[in-house]
Amino acid sequence: MPAFVYKSDPVRGQQWARLFAERAPDIEFRQWPDTGDPADVRYMAAWTPPPRLHEVFPNLEILFTTGAGIDHLDLSAIPDSVPLVRMIDPAFAEGMAQYVLHAVLDVHRDCFDYAEQQARGVWLPRPIRSASQVRVGVLGMGNLAKASLHRLVQLGYACAAWSRSAHRMEGVECFAGAQAMRAFLARTEVLVCLLPLTDDTRGLLGEELLSQLPRGASLVQVARGAHLDHGALMRLLASGHLSSARLDVTDPEPLPAGHPLWRHPRVRITPHIATAARPEVAVDAVLENIRRHHDGQPMHGLVDRKRGY
Amino acid sequence: MPAFVYKSDPVRGQQWARLFAERAPDIEFRQWPDTGDPADVRYMAAWTPPPRLHEVFPNLEILFTTGAGIDHLDLSAIPDSVPLVRMIDPAFAEGMAQYVLHAVLDVHRDCFDYAEQQARGVWLPRPIRSASQVRVGVLGMGNLAKASLHRLVQLGYACAAWSRSAHRMEGVECFAGAQAMRAFLARTEVLVCLLPLTDDTRGLLGEELLSQLPRGASLVQVARGAHLDHGALMRLLASGHLSSARLDVTDPEPLPAGHPLWRHPRVRITPHIATAARPEVAVDAVLENIRRHHDGQPMHGLVDRKRGY
Repeated sequence: MPAFVYKSDPVRGQQWARLFAERAPDIEFRQWPDTGDPADVRYMAAWTPPPRLHEVFPNLEILFTTGAGIDHLDLSAIPDSVPLVRMIDPAFAEGMAQYVLHAVLDVHRDCFDYAEQQARGVWLPRPIRSASQVRVGVLGMGNLAKASLHRLVQLGYACAAWSRSAHRMEGVECFAGAQAMRAFLARTEVLVCLLPLTDDTRGLLGEELLSQLPRGASLVQVARGAHLDHGALMRLLASGHLSSARLDVTDPEPLPAGHPLWRHPRVRITPHIATAARPEVAVDAVLENIRRHHDGQPMHGLVDRKRGY
Repeated sequence: MPAFVYKSDPVRGQQWARLFAERAPDIEFRQWPDTGDPADVRYMAAWTPPPRLHEVFPNLEILFTTGAGIDHLDLSAIPDSVPLVRMIDPAFAEGMAQYVLHAVLDVHRDCFDYAEQQARGVWLPRPIRSASQVRVGVLGMGNLAKASLHRLVQLGYACAAWSRSAHRMEGVECFAGAQAMRAFLARTEVLVCLLPLTDDTRGLLGEELLSQLPRGASLVQVARGAHLDHGALMRLLASGHLSSARLDVTDPEPLPAGHPLWRHPRVRITPHIATAARPEVAVDAVLENIRRHHDGQPMHGLVDRKRGY
């Protein structure tokens, strides 16, 4: 019987084990490090695969990652012959879309100002803007960005997106390529980062890029901590160029207890909880991809190694 | 030429004046107290009409209120012969729906817990629930309640509504009448109050009703301050029966600077800004109703005085 090895959070692993027993009785589920006979292992789901993967599991046919990004992986250590598949899960995208919508509503509905007023016992209404007056710009046009834009468009926000290559989406002003970045930033007052982390995007959210946003803009950072230069963020908040930031990811994680960002009144920090795969959905996605692989159909979330996502 | 008198916020009144000049040149717009010849006055929009309305404007045909509620009006001082029309404005409902969605997301996505953790520099992820696992219950089935429920259903929340008389709405479990209140409260973990303020509903959000919510429930109060017993809220928060509250309305308003609710870590207060009419939309709604009145069609938002809304 072909075997599937799971190497990630062990509590979730137990949920995967139950779901596999129910939904794929013809595949033997094993949880790392109890991998049994390595020759049986055809599939693996891992946050980080073991070193020398090819020697450990010589018959591996597919490697699934348990996250949406692959930036934490050393691709050179994964044999080219093994397809690498990212987690593409509608519930995963839906959790992100909720989080992004919540963060945009925080800005749109003046939650930072009202929190400051509440701390001082001040009752002072501010003018209400309609959603169509709030210009949201999303960096990235992947699965999570599209799900977030879908919700933002539904609520009536003035949406734009920037991506490396050209995309189209109903209700979204699409910008593509490096030369379009300046125009995209100039029209954006709530910037949402949902880019993959690659050599091209590491540190992208630095002083140069963020300074091109209009004065008073806000940042919603839900991609990877290493996209953002914390020092640049602190300086732009201090100068008033940025008026607030919501960070779900930091570099490093956890953010050290004494870091000044924790105490900043215009910064909201959450501990990398914008979204998470739900085992029932993740297992269904994995089983569907195994089926597609055997039927010779393209798998959902197959990574293009040259592109890096 | 028939005249229209506006008696409410004077800054908004200037916007109304411009819009009337553009869209209804056959009606003379006058702003209180410059009402000109009272005999010309056929229509009035007011937050509070002047005393002895009938003597002041003997030829008044329609009285429009500039808010969605009429609880602040003395109906006995408004002649029965003058139809009273509430503000029904899609943008008004949309603002409320945004506010309610934002408040529900605050609860669903653990914002009170993460704010407390941030204050202590603690990075601790909590389990993420899907929207379908969050049971939202809306008190009221008026225009604003329906718009809010529409957005909540769209996001996948498990929605119910309670109203005095029977209603139906796709995706919403509807409860009607006093005897159904207990079952409605028992299944509700985020209670949103969008009831009109009447003699029946004044003080309704007291210890007896709120105690019937399951332990750990949250309150979102966006109707009128006098619905809620502040003391009961404080006691139920202290006992942990309620885990958080979002208040956009209080009694009195403004909430006095030293009130203990301002400083409660599980209470968010905003200064009655959940929504507001936008002049361009309000003026269109008013002109449409004047047209309907003259064509013998029913006006949108006509108040049933016996029912009180």
